[in-house]
Amino acid sequence: MSGPVLEPTPDPLAVSSDVETAVLAAAVRARGAAHELAVATRAAKDAALEAMAEGLVTASAEILAANAEDVRAAQQAGTPEAIVDRLRLDRSRIEGMADGLRQVAGLPDPVGEVVRGSTLPNGLELRQVRVPFGVVGIIYEARPNVTADAAGICLKSGNAVLLRGSSSALRSNQAIVTALRRAAASAGVPEDAVQPVPGEGHQPAKVLMRARGHVDVLIPRGGAGLIRSVVQESTVPVIETGVGNCHVYVDAAADLDMALAIVLNSKTHRPSVCNAAETLLVHAAVADTFLPRVAQALQDEGVTVHGDETFQRQPGVVAATDDDHDAEYLSLDISAAVVPSLEAAVDHIRVHSSGHTEAIVTDSQEAARRFVAAVDSAAVMVNASTRFTDGGEFGFGAEIGISTQKLHARGPMGLPEMTSTKYVVTGQGHTR
Amino acid sequence: MSGPVLEPTPDPLAVSSDVETAVLAAAVRARGAAHELAVATRAAKDAALEAMAEGLVTASAEILAANAEDVRAAQQAGTPEAIVDRLRLDRSRIEGMADGLRQVAGLPDPVGEVVRGSTLPNGLELRQVRVPFGVVGIIYEARPNVTADAAGICLKSGNAVLLRGSSSALRSNQAIVTALRRAAASAGVPEDAVQPVPGEGHQPAKVLMRARGHVDVLIPRGGAGLIRSVVQESTVPVIETGVGNCHVYVDAAADLDMALAIVLNSKTHRPSVCNAAETLLVHAAVADTFLPRVAQALQDEGVTVHGDETFQRQPGVVAATDDDHDAEYLSLDISAAVVPSLEAAVDHIRVHSSGHTEAIVTDSQEAARRFVAAVDSAAVMVNASTRFTDGGEFGFGAEIGISTQKLHARGPMGLPEMTSTKYVVTGQGHTR
Repeated sequence: MSGPVLEPTPDPLAVSSDVETAVLAAAVRARGAAHELAVATRAAKDAALEAMAEGLVTASAEILAANAEDVRAAQQAGTPEAIVDRLRLDRSRIEGMADGLRQVAGLPDPVGEVVRGSTLPNGLELRQVRVPFGVVGIIYEARPNVTADAAGICLKSGNAVLLRGSSSALRSNQAIVTALRRAAASAGVPEDAVQPVPGEGHQPAKVLMRARGHVDVLIPRGGAGLIRSVVQESTVPVIETGVGNCHVYVDAAADLDMALAIVLNSKTHRPSVCNAAETLLVHAAVADTFLPRVAQALQDEGVTVHGDETFQRQPGVVAATDDDHDAEYLSLDISAAVVPSLEAAVDHIRVHSSGHTEAIVTDSQEAARRFVAAVDSAAVMVNASTRFTDGGEFGFGAEIGISTQKLHARGPMGLPEMTSTKYVVTGQGHTR
Repeated sequence: MSGPVLEPTPDPLAVSSDVETAVLAAAVRARGAAHELAVATRAAKDAALEAMAEGLVTASAEILAANAEDVRAAQQAGTPEAIVDRLRLDRSRIEGMADGLRQVAGLPDPVGEVVRGSTLPNGLELRQVRVPFGVVGIIYEARPNVTADAAGICLKSGNAVLLRGSSSALRSNQAIVTALRRAAASAGVPEDAVQPVPGEGHQPAKVLMRARGHVDVLIPRGGAGLIRSVVQESTVPVIETGVGNCHVYVDAAADLDMALAIVLNSKTHRPSVCNAAETLLVHAAVADTFLPRVAQALQDEGVTVHGDETFQRQPGVVAATDDDHDAEYLSLDISAAVVPSLEAAVDHIRVHSSGHTEAIVTDSQEAARRFVAAVDSAAVMVNASTRFTDGGEFGFGAEIGISTQKLHARGPMGLPEMTSTKYVVTGQGHTR
């Protein structure tokens, strides 16, 4: 343990240059650890992950004690119970974190995979090989389980990680990181491969965002506000994740029973996550039949329907504004509109979507083709719930987040998405 | 032709909000064109590229007249002749641009390629498909041929492009863009797929850099200063290109004849490009034999050797500073140092390299393995010249630049690197 960085900043009024020095020092230590990790064998990394899983379980008492303090502080500060609940750990949640680490240990190592390779006409042997990014920064909100998940995925993909959780989870995160570092070191992996970002308040995250050259990639995980601020302020390359204003479009040629099941599942299966549907679009040709059914069924499940004028003719539907069409509710609310055509649905999606997931329900091959071609989102579902956009569902085994940007990775990000590549070119004295 | 955007800003003192409005309006038109291009067939895109090639040749007189004005203005402003030369066009350079467009027409279409696909255990069919980014911004310096090259690569990969060349090439670029747009439109591709960024001075580029949501990717092509400023100021995702402080390391186990040939080729074959070598590192074990030969041979080719103390014992070698080790000379200069070990060479590279290309010359399998594993650059050469890091040499057919960043693309960027992907998931009413 290089202890000092885990202790709270002694002087809360410390000038920013002290914070900067501490954060950059952590990044420099991470770089050193990354150099070691980049050449570590899969066996060594998996042994460390198993040790880290065991370490979490062994440290349960400390972690739960630290978490209880965070929870008490949050409650005293009047934090809404839903957020306190995301913060709260128990033995089963710690077991869940440990299981996650073991699962990552069981996945193939992305590092060293040859992505493309050939022998050039002049005899040069060209290989494009997966390599770690190096140092990854994760800035995330309340849930302390992200600490273990992110550490595991980064370690397996050969990256050192700098973790910046929210201050409300500071004690929990520190207890988790302490256990992970101790376990990693016991398995021969440098403890500085997993580090908290030192310091309090907003300053350390700002230093992290400006640490271009020291930090290779920054991944914000949390609400739209957090992600927007990282994207705006960061000079380090960012992978934008997770804001989902997902649409379900019920086509003129839809099987309406299937459509009803998909709408209900997309909206109500787990309303608080990014792949839940937030907007329902219905083709005018099926509105008369479908609107009474879907409006009633959604309300039976406790959903408030924010509808356009046509939807408002259904009992209980409230009026939607344009803000509703842009909203990522993350709650039992849905905006709803009738559209005159598939193209109008696509236009609506282009204006309002966050580019996460859109679904079409249709029996028409041609409608599906046009929708899939025209909708530019990370995932497009045909006759399936938006809830399937998920690393676990896609079979990736582990997921660091769902990218909603177009650069590098788009959609659920597994281990390969946590790597870069390099070209290795072997000759026998080749010159031009 | 949507004429106004191609005309010079009427009032050079126009307030920035006018510039912003004009640039964003161009981006909005580009988005519309991108929607059409995204679903254009390869045949339609190739026909447009052929028409654009023909259009350039047909417009030769206008292009050369516009270029002559740029050249005259540059000369009157006292611009160095080397830069004026990069600016200057002639019939053969125009033919070269046209040939480039025809070559791109002959390449496979990256859009629609299925990168990965499987049927999930629950029967969902998962496909990851290449799609265009959408709207790409290119900010580049003097060479007007970039205008045609970038337009061709972007169009083939389904992207609309906003081109911001340097003001010294304004008239040349406008003449080229006018010819390209006219030809594209004649072949049925929206002319707004290729647009200049309107307005004068630095303001329009700054608007482009802040146009997140309107512009999907920004690619700066030019000197280190340009690239640094785009990286620092842009909220649009950037692909960093081309700064190369490339190293050649001559190992203890090197074939010294091969080493000499590779050093000379890497340094002198074309000193002004990013994959030219700028630093030579020699293992101490071969210094006595190799230094006299390499110092003499480099100087025979007109190269100034900026050496460390050991190198300075050779006649004609001048003293190197740390600035020399960081320099991207792009000229007949090389910094040179003796290192006690392969690990010391790797450490030197880690401190000074720009992450472009490093080469090792060695007959030792083990030395090559250690060097390749430890050096974290876009390309690592074993017994080959650094000059091979090039889209053409790698067989990509066309190249938009060489990425030196780790996100998205690293190394030479061909057509596939100008795309994103999306997941298309097809079910039969699947819900969770």
